Amino acid sequence: VAPELIFMAQMQVRLPLDLDPSDLERLKQSERERAQEIMRAGKWPHLWRVAGRYANVSIFDVDSVDELHDLISSLPMFSHMDITITPLATHPTALIP
Amino acid sequence: VAPELIFMAQMQVRLPLDLDPSDLERLKQSERERAQEIMRAGKWPHLWRVAGRYANVSIFDVDSVDELHDLISSLPMFSHMDITITPLATHPTALIP
Amino acid sequence: VAPELIFMAQMQVRLPLDLDPSDLERLKQSERERAQEIMRAGKWPHLWRVAGRYANVSIFDVDSVDELHDLISSLPMFSHMDITITPLATHPTALIP
Amino acid sequence: VAPELIFMAQMQVRLPLDLDPSDLERLKQSERERAQEIMRAGKWPHLWRVAGRYANVSIFDVDSVDELHDLISSLPMFSHMDITITPLATHPTALIP
Amino acid sequence: VAPELIFMAQMQVRLPLDLDPSDLERLKQSERERAQEIMRAGKWPHLWRVAGRYANVSIFDVDSVDELHDLISSLPMFSHMDITITPLATHPTALIP
Amino acid sequence: VAPELIFMAQMQVRLPLDLDPSDLERLKQSERERAQEIMRAGKWPHLWRVAGRYANVSIFDVDSVDELHDLISSLPMFSHMDITITPLATHPTALIP
Amino acid sequence: VAPELIFMAQMQVRLPLDLDPSDLERLKQSERERAQEIMRAGKWPHLWRVAGRYANVSIFDVDSVDELHDLISSLPMFSHMDITITPLATHPTALIP
Amino acid sequence: VAPELIFMAQMQVRLPLDLDPSDLERLKQSERERAQEIMRAGKWPHLWRVAGRYANVSIFDVDSVDELHDLISSLPMFSHMDITITPLATHPTALIP
Amino acid sequence: VAPELIFMAQMQVRLPLDLDPSDLERLKQSERERAQEIMRAGKWPHLWRVAGRYANVSIFDVDSVDELHDLISSLPMFSHMDITITPLATHPTALIP
Amino acid sequence: VAPELIFMAQMQVRLPLDLDPSDLERLKQSERERAQEIMRAGKWPHLWRVAGRYANVSIFDVDSVDELHDLISSLPMFSHMDITITPLATHPTALIP
Repeated sequence: VAPELIFMAQMQVRLPLDLDPSDLERLKQSERERAQEIMRAGKWPHLWRVAGRYANVSIFDVDSVDELHDLISSLPMFSHMDITITPLATHPTALIP
Repeated sequence: VAPELIFMAQMQVRLPLDLDPSDLERLKQSERERAQEIMRAGKWPHLWRVAGRYANVSIFDVDSVDELHDLISSLPMFSHMDITITPLATHPTALIP
Repeated sequence: VAPELIFMAQMQVRLPLDLDPSDLERLKQSERERAQEIMRAGKWPHLWRVAGRYANVSIFDVDSVDELHDLISSLPMFSHMDITITPLATHPTALIP
Repeated sequence: VAPELIFMAQMQVRLPLDLDPSDLERLKQSERERAQEIMRAGKWPHLWRVAGRYANVSIFDVDSVDELHDLISSLPMFSHMDITITPLATHPTALIP
Repeated sequence: VAPELIFMAQMQVRLPLDLDPSDLERLKQSERERAQEIMRAGKWPHLWRVAGRYANVSIFDVDSVDELHDLISSLPMFSHMDITITPLATHPTALIP
Repeated sequence: VAPELIFMAQMQVRLPLDLDPSDLERLKQSERERAQEIMRAGKWPHLWRVAGRYANVSIFDVDSVDELHDLISSLPMFSHMDITITPLATHPTALIP
Repeated sequence: VAPELIFMAQMQVRLPLDLDPSDLERLKQSERERAQEIMRAGKWPHLWRVAGRYANVSIFDVDSVDELHDLISSLPMFSHMDITITPLATHPTALIP
Repeated sequence: VAPELIFMAQMQVRLPLDLDPSDLERLKQSERERAQEIMRAGKWPHLWRVAGRYANVSIFDVDSVDELHDLISSLPMFSHMDITITPLATHPTALIP
Repeated sequence: VAPELIFMAQMQVRLPLDLDPSDLERLKQSERERAQEIMRAGKWPHLWRVAGRYANVSIFDVDSVDELHDLISSLPMFSHMDITITPLATHPTALIP
Repeated sequence: VAPELIFMAQMQVRLPLDLDPSDLERLKQSERERAQEIMRAGKWPHLWRVAGRYANVSIFDVDSVDELHDLISSLPMFSHMDITITPLATHPTALIP
């Protein structure tokens, strides 16, 4: 089997301030649905809200960098987010590798 | 019960370059032991190595900010690390809260 | 009792420049009302204006990170502010812990 | 009476790594004593530890900028700290001015 | 008498590019008038243009931080400026304190 | 077969200025040997010098993030370099995927 | 023959959020065509997508800095990109110069 | 005679993306004419394009800082540029002072 | 007469921490003497201490950029300071040009 | 003939503070000699001192990026300098291309 590929993504949402409230609600709803689809496929094992910001810290578990990019760029809010990716390796001190 | 308190810590190690190799080995060994002690207590559920750097991404699960500071400052390498803390809240989209 | 949870929030307001003056007044008024509601609940013990800027330094005293995020994101100006959160621990030198 | 003068100081300690342990202990002890002296004089009403860092967030209440500088530069660790000062004004929303 | 309170303000103007030329002229004129009012009151002893930028370096001499904030936020261009404040103390080397 | 994993590494060397010239020569020689070993294994297909700096831009082609970290941290100069890693995906416009 | 001139270009696309979808599609299509024209001329040997961002890492191989600027500024998205150029020299350790 | 006054100006153009093409052409044409007027007066001896950016590096030779500011702020694109000024002194190593 | 040339210098002192106390005292004394010499010559009309830092804000009034550099680099602490220079022009709103 | 290749180099010198004065003088002297050798070869047409800093702005005119790197890294102070390189293209507005 291919080895595990773990990446941290830090996503900061920057929505246009003049978005129509119902368009905004629809966008958030479709974002939620697509995100949960990726989570149910086991590709997005952790998702936390950064306190006080419209931002999150995410852990992705993928088969390739191409898959990572395809998943993230499939999010409906992709063009409204500043995203930073950090590749993570196994830490020798971790109890569960 | 008190609510869960989750924090991300990003730690960058900056060791003095003139450290004696056996002192360095001892420091790394004691760091590993103290870290695993905290992990076994269930306070440090995730630890990843940042690829290409002497750095890590950690998730802490604590009872208070004081406990978070006490745990991190008890690490033998504490005075050799640049550390940034990000408080994490539950994300409404996460499948498992 | 759960331990005290203290966070500093630094909030910089960035209002759209083309906001209608009466909408702006309404927004400021509702912001003021919601903020004082949180203050009267004892959750926001300190609030200072940063001199020369439309910005503030705030101290929050909450029961959880989730509560901190819920309070701050309930502010009517939330989507118009850049916010940074710093978790604060007890300082051993402080006379009143 | 002169109006209140409130300043936030953010202090990051950067101690030399090769400090002798007993010199370090003496330095910390004299820092603690001088800080508490300033606190007892009512000039340093708040002091918090920044979680995960050898740093603090402080509120000073002084009679002049000269007094602020004199107090801070009288700290034994002054030459080992990066310090940023933010002048704070009364916020119109604060319940207790 | 209360001691002197000196602050440096660095102001960078960022005007919306689509401002109507006559509105812009009116805004600049009212800015000039309010600024000179503050200067004539002796509160703004120095004002320089930063060469090559729509920016200035200013020295304010005020009775309190609240007064400093009130003066600066009374400028008609206040919401179009990025402003940084630096509190200044007497320098022991200066010939005229 | 596992998909290709491509990463850009940007490495800035910061050698201690008081290194003995013959130690420095030995360090550079062992760095060169280890680097070429990795290149001959096909894991480091591109290496360029950043003009005017003791720095490089590198492309790595690895089987896992763990392998990437192991290769880079096996370089004799690892503890003397600031390294940033950027995960690279296939670009849809590239003629040769 | 003139020596090889290699430059890394890091391009971050920042499209206006209110672009009409069919205009956006046309812009992307013309960008793709012009880019491939430059690639087929042998001037743009490498192009990678930065994972998680609408950005790329590119290697250009040109005859002059003027040619580099002419090629990049001929891209239809040129005015929508933040671009950083790094001149690359031959690295003495590289196996294939 | 007054001594030579040399300044480097680094100018980054940031044009609004919705500018009408003919207005843009007119703006560029008037910018070119005013710039060449200043050059012919001997006040702007060097002008280079920063490769890959809508930016330039310029050397100005003026009689005063006021003249420098007047020349730069007379450029039709002045309000669309981020400009940084660096004062340059004679270098003792330069062959031609 | 040559026009006035006004520059702001922001100087941050960074002394080596292991300086001998009597050497430090001698350095500070010679710095003070040279600074006052420049002040008495009318070249350094303003000098303020930045509150809470070993730093100053200075205004220089010189005949040329070369003179500015010669004065600043003649300070005994020159090699221990990070210095930023901002050229200042007359502001049209200033009451006293 | 090969086209002109023009690069701006911005060099900031950071000398170790404990350098022996006669070693420092020798280093400066050899730096001056090597720099003038490059200038006399026509490769370094402009060199200015950044006012108030131990730094310079340089223009290089070379045949290749490799030559640029070889010239700069041949300077005796190379390992004591932070250097940034900016490739410069012909500006269409410049009177003398």
